[in-house]
Amino acid sequence: MRFISRILSVSPKPCYLHIRYISSLSSTMASTEDSLRRSLAEKQSSIDAQAAAVRSLKSSGAPKSEIDAAVEALNALKLDKASTEKQLQDAVSGNGNANAVNRDAFRQAVVNTLERRLFYIPSFKIYRGVAGLYDYGPPGCAVKSNVLGFWRQHFVLEENMLEVDCPCVTPEIVLKASGHVDKFTDLMVKDEKTGTCYRADHLLKDFCKEKLEKDLSMSAEKAAELKHILAILDDLSAEELGTKIKEYGITAPDTKNPLSDPYPFNLMFQTSIGPSGLSPGYMRPETAQGIFVNFKDLYYYNGNKLPFAAAQIGQAFRNEISPRQGLLRVREFTLAEIEHFVDPDEKSHPKFDDVANLEFLMFPREGQTSGQSAKKIHIGEAVSKGIVNNETLGYFIGRVYLFLTYLGIDKERLRFRQHLANEMAHYAADCWDAEIECSYGWIECVGIADRSAYDLKAHSEKSGVPLVAHEKFQEPREVEKLVIAPVKKELGLAFKGAQKNVVEALEAMGEKEAMEMKAILESKGEAEFHVCTLGKSVTIKKNMVMISKERKKEHQRVFTPSVIEPSFGIGRIIYCLFEHCFYTRPSKAGDEQLNVFRFPPLVAPIKCTVFPLVQNQQYEEVAKLISKSLTAAGISHKIDITGTSIGKRYARTDELGVPFAITVDSTTSVTIRERDSKDQIRVSVEEVASVVKEVTDGQSTWADVLWRYPTRSTVVVDE
Amino acid sequence: MRFISRILSVSPKPCYLHIRYISSLSSTMASTEDSLRRSLAEKQSSIDAQAAAVRSLKSSGAPKSEIDAAVEALNALKLDKASTEKQLQDAVSGNGNANAVNRDAFRQAVVNTLERRLFYIPSFKIYRGVAGLYDYGPPGCAVKSNVLGFWRQHFVLEENMLEVDCPCVTPEIVLKASGHVDKFTDLMVKDEKTGTCYRADHLLKDFCKEKLEKDLSMSAEKAAELKHILAILDDLSAEELGTKIKEYGITAPDTKNPLSDPYPFNLMFQTSIGPSGLSPGYMRPETAQGIFVNFKDLYYYNGNKLPFAAAQIGQAFRNEISPRQGLLRVREFTLAEIEHFVDPDEKSHPKFDDVANLEFLMFPREGQTSGQSAKKIHIGEAVSKGIVNNETLGYFIGRVYLFLTYLGIDKERLRFRQHLANEMAHYAADCWDAEIECSYGWIECVGIADRSAYDLKAHSEKSGVPLVAHEKFQEPREVEKLVIAPVKKELGLAFKGAQKNVVEALEAMGEKEAMEMKAILESKGEAEFHVCTLGKSVTIKKNMVMISKERKKEHQRVFTPSVIEPSFGIGRIIYCLFEHCFYTRPSKAGDEQLNVFRFPPLVAPIKCTVFPLVQNQQYEEVAKLISKSLTAAGISHKIDITGTSIGKRYARTDELGVPFAITVDSTTSVTIRERDSKDQIRVSVEEVASVVKEVTDGQSTWADVLWRYPTRSTVVVDE
Repeated sequence: MRFISRILSVSPKPCYLHIRYISSLSSTMASTEDSLRRSLAEKQSSIDAQAAAVRSLKSSGAPKSEIDAAVEALNALKLDKASTEKQLQDAVSGNGNANAVNRDAFRQAVVNTLERRLFYIPSFKIYRGVAGLYDYGPPGCAVKSNVLGFWRQHFVLEENMLEVDCPCVTPEIVLKASGHVDKFTDLMVKDEKTGTCYRADHLLKDFCKEKLEKDLSMSAEKAAELKHILAILDDLSAEELGTKIKEYGITAPDTKNPLSDPYPFNLMFQTSIGPSGLSPGYMRPETAQGIFVNFKDLYYYNGNKLPFAAAQIGQAFRNEISPRQGLLRVREFTLAEIEHFVDPDEKSHPKFDDVANLEFLMFPREGQTSGQSAKKIHIGEAVSKGIVNNETLGYFIGRVYLFLTYLGIDKERLRFRQHLANEMAHYAADCWDAEIECSYGWIECVGIADRSAYDLKAHSEKSGVPLVAHEKFQEPREVEKLVIAPVKKELGLAFKGAQKNVVEALEAMGEKEAMEMKAILESKGEAEFHVCTLGKSVTIKKNMVMISKERKKEHQRVFTPSVIEPSFGIGRIIYCLFEHCFYTRPSKAGDEQLNVFRFPPLVAPIKCTVFPLVQNQQYEEVAKLISKSLTAAGISHKIDITGTSIGKRYARTDELGVPFAITVDSTTSVTIRERDSKDQIRVSVEEVASVVKEVTDGQSTWADVLWRYPTRSTVVVDE
Repeated sequence: MRFISRILSVSPKPCYLHIRYISSLSSTMASTEDSLRRSLAEKQSSIDAQAAAVRSLKSSGAPKSEIDAAVEALNALKLDKASTEKQLQDAVSGNGNANAVNRDAFRQAVVNTLERRLFYIPSFKIYRGVAGLYDYGPPGCAVKSNVLGFWRQHFVLEENMLEVDCPCVTPEIVLKASGHVDKFTDLMVKDEKTGTCYRADHLLKDFCKEKLEKDLSMSAEKAAELKHILAILDDLSAEELGTKIKEYGITAPDTKNPLSDPYPFNLMFQTSIGPSGLSPGYMRPETAQGIFVNFKDLYYYNGNKLPFAAAQIGQAFRNEISPRQGLLRVREFTLAEIEHFVDPDEKSHPKFDDVANLEFLMFPREGQTSGQSAKKIHIGEAVSKGIVNNETLGYFIGRVYLFLTYLGIDKERLRFRQHLANEMAHYAADCWDAEIECSYGWIECVGIADRSAYDLKAHSEKSGVPLVAHEKFQEPREVEKLVIAPVKKELGLAFKGAQKNVVEALEAMGEKEAMEMKAILESKGEAEFHVCTLGKSVTIKKNMVMISKERKKEHQRVFTPSVIEPSFGIGRIIYCLFEHCFYTRPSKAGDEQLNVFRFPPLVAPIKCTVFPLVQNQQYEEVAKLISKSLTAAGISHKIDITGTSIGKRYARTDELGVPFAITVDSTTSVTIRERDSKDQIRVSVEEVASVVKEVTDGQSTWADVLWRYPTRSTVVVDE
């Protein structure tokens, strides 16, 4: 449970669409039907090509694995086409859930634009791709690099965090200690005839949902039962899932063949380290473990002082059974994780006041169970009322809110949802997810958890290296301490080879148990003592152990720090950002809808474009001069000297989310046009790079410069 | 051959130490013996601890693999200690090769500092580590992030490259096409009793070297033979290596057991994609393939125009048989690769003039074979004389030179070495390595290769998707084209099932072969024709194929672009940078040697420190104010309000390579101290952040500001 929910599971909660969201969709409605028809035609031709490829593989006697892969790809294409057909049917007939149709059409429009402009594309496309693997093309890669750069600025630099960079290849023992080897699994079923694998919970979920939607003759009791299953889906054991699958007669979706019983499938990519084949390893499923195992060195680096935070950005890997939903559930992704180590007795935060007045949508546990929706709360109030466990956790929630909204995430479609008791690991003190609403519903994009001392303790135990902190007392403190001193000679004589187990068990006694034994030994001379590791009781005599309480002066306190972990799924954040920034507007002639990404300059893949108004050597030279000064100022830009109309050039770069366009329409001064307002100002050639730098660096807003420079009332350039 | 030499193999050439290098070592000589003694003591205690761990594992009946791993770690520690003992022996007795001793001692001093200050550390240390895996701790991670940031600025931004970001997990078919599945191997031998693996060439190399050094009674003929083997080591086949190993009686180094015959071991980490177990995959051994498979989309993105370059930064993985030499041969590393696609008939570069006047050490093929050493050549001259194959290759060599020297690589210890004919793949047009000299010798850090059309053709063939470019002619051109039209009906009657092979072989004929067949068919009515895929010759009759030459009008030329590939091993560059920036200088009292990294501000992990001169509330508040303004200016810094002496605080941060220290010694103005010169200037509190920004951003040099602000003639603060 914990592992999946840590980050990257799609929230199973139903999706409540916000009014604002719906309205932002309406502008794209007009082109829905057309876009779906075009998409369908494309998909049919992909299917034809793929079917031909399958036939040719078969006729050339290719190996079975290659044919199977090709057939699988064909089936995926067919499924994809079928889903589009359904959308089209709904769109044409006006049937179905209008919201769902809008949502799907909106998503289709965004994704088409993203793939066409190479924000991201399926990896290894010329080899028919691999499910769950995506490449970021040039604009997507630039957005990602900007998001990560800002993450470093906002978290690592501003909070003086210790950033580290650990390998992806991880030896088994580390992930054994963390629990991933044993517990990082999903339940899987197999088609008993073809061997195709499915996630058991997905099949049950799909069955329940479909039944609820389609079977209108169902009894109220039956419907309640199915809804209950959807609610508790994540808590079902393999046996329970298997029973339900049998009871409902669920079969393999593609073949209708019977299914195997559910069994756990470990989601880590396994490999082998070194040539011997004897050292199993895995591709890390998260970056956090690299920080935990380095705690001792990092604590020392920080001058043996708490609190401090370590951070890491890097790739993580999960061998999903059935990747879905584009960038949201993938097999390899970038995580950015912070592990903030803190004294468990002192979780206040010196900079909490900086965020205390922020107000945003929060969805506390109580609200969720009593059926309310998320509401706006001051984070200061949430901490003082105990809704959020402590100041440090609250501080990070506030910082995450600022981070996401600076990036361009719509604050009305961002909420912080507290984990329910059954979602949280037993050791966690509190856990909140930053969820962003997109066309797939509310998506968990950042997890912010107070994980107590769990991880450090697990690695201390497995490695034998104490991962602890020390608090030196100003004055030594007198404390009463239990002293248990086994007399090894006597124990050796009595228990021979089992001596070690008995000694360890004696030393592990708690205060109460030890003092009881002391009393019994003193009154009766011997005591029965259960030794777990031997699986039996032994008789301890008075001369075998000395138990006493001593007053001791202590100079320091030794403890395992708590860790508060904000963990960011970068790909998910970026995908949601794409959706939140996307809109369409009619072209000047009104004959088509143009796509725009309203990225803030901070994340825009290219900050500005340089267009000579007409093809003319003088203008081109000015454009090249401006390009040089932009490069010197470190501003990513694109120069376009094609003869295409300015309107078309604007439209092309609006679709990439370029915030500013410089049009060279004279040799002394030029026009700067802002993407969303289409406002234009006149700036001299000498000044233009510094003006663009000012507005893209965030030193000034567009409104600031609009006020300082003459605006262009009559738009000379055609748009 | 090609795969290993592509990047990251340590050059097998002997190391010629430069005069300058030797002199830079002398300052560290004094502390050599001490440092080695300390190091030895530390190593002995590690051995004791590890021996205890082994005993406890054995007595607790731990699994054999765990015990083996622990024993292996113990052996590694012992070997390590032995090597240090030898160094100490040499240092004390003054025996041995003085250069080698200096070199090892210098390295030891650098590496000790790097590990102690967490620039990098062995990964998973608390679990006794994994050979060939390292973590970058906070300062190392910051250096790496600065190096990558500058790489993006210098290459991607300035050259308008298309940056992409592809997954590490790669399906088998991609690496089958690239040749890695079949050829990316090292030859390995196994200890026949224990199963321990060794690299066959390493064993033979070590044997020859040791024999040459130790066996002074060896005949001149025998010595020449061993030297010859060292020279051709990389070209030996498995059989030849095996023969030599047998002939010389080489046994397993640790046990003296006999060795198996050499056999190839694939260096890729293998894994399985998806739950079925039927889709083998690998962790990519380089990032380039992700770019090649996307050529079609990237070409389209670039407006179907050549030339253009794509770039990628990312992790790559090689499951080395025996990782060595710290950061230089590791199992996971960061590569930054550029694939510049260009018309094979037009490899001039519009910006070549920008670099043509650069002069640096070059080591052309002829110089190497005729026993000369590298010499300074203008890159312009190298291209015009044909030493470097073409302008584009020359342009990148120049840009790489600028990149490395801006980072702080010593230009006297950087050379560009041309690959010898036997090092280059058959398809490569030319290939140069940027080699940096460090204590391990000359290390290949950047490979700059003109790989012709090889990669795109390989993926075109395997995927069936043409990865080609088009050149539209202004006017259609008339060309004579060979037309081969097999008559399938006749061929089918004659060859039945083998028809396909015959058709393919006919269509694959070159012009000469086809015209010869045409002549024979016309004169004799039939011709013998060898079909490779059938392994035999068949008789082709006149009615089975039509061969003709037709004049056609062509509107465009279709061709596979050449690719010029600069490929950067980031970890290697960083390690060499560490060595080049490291020096020691005596403390003020002269009682100890202090370590300094003279990183340029561009790469320094932290740009400045803020120290209140004494512990005093007023000064601390000023320090915090300055810290805030530094954060706002985006300058990474560290504030140290401990009461430690200023001299100690300077020394601590000199060892991290922090270029500037701000000492708060009044409430209105402060002292800025430069790390290497120890110059100090007085600047007002309001100005200090902007002055530091100016010198760290590279807008001004330290000399500039030294001239503008009053210097501190009497150094108030103790140093």
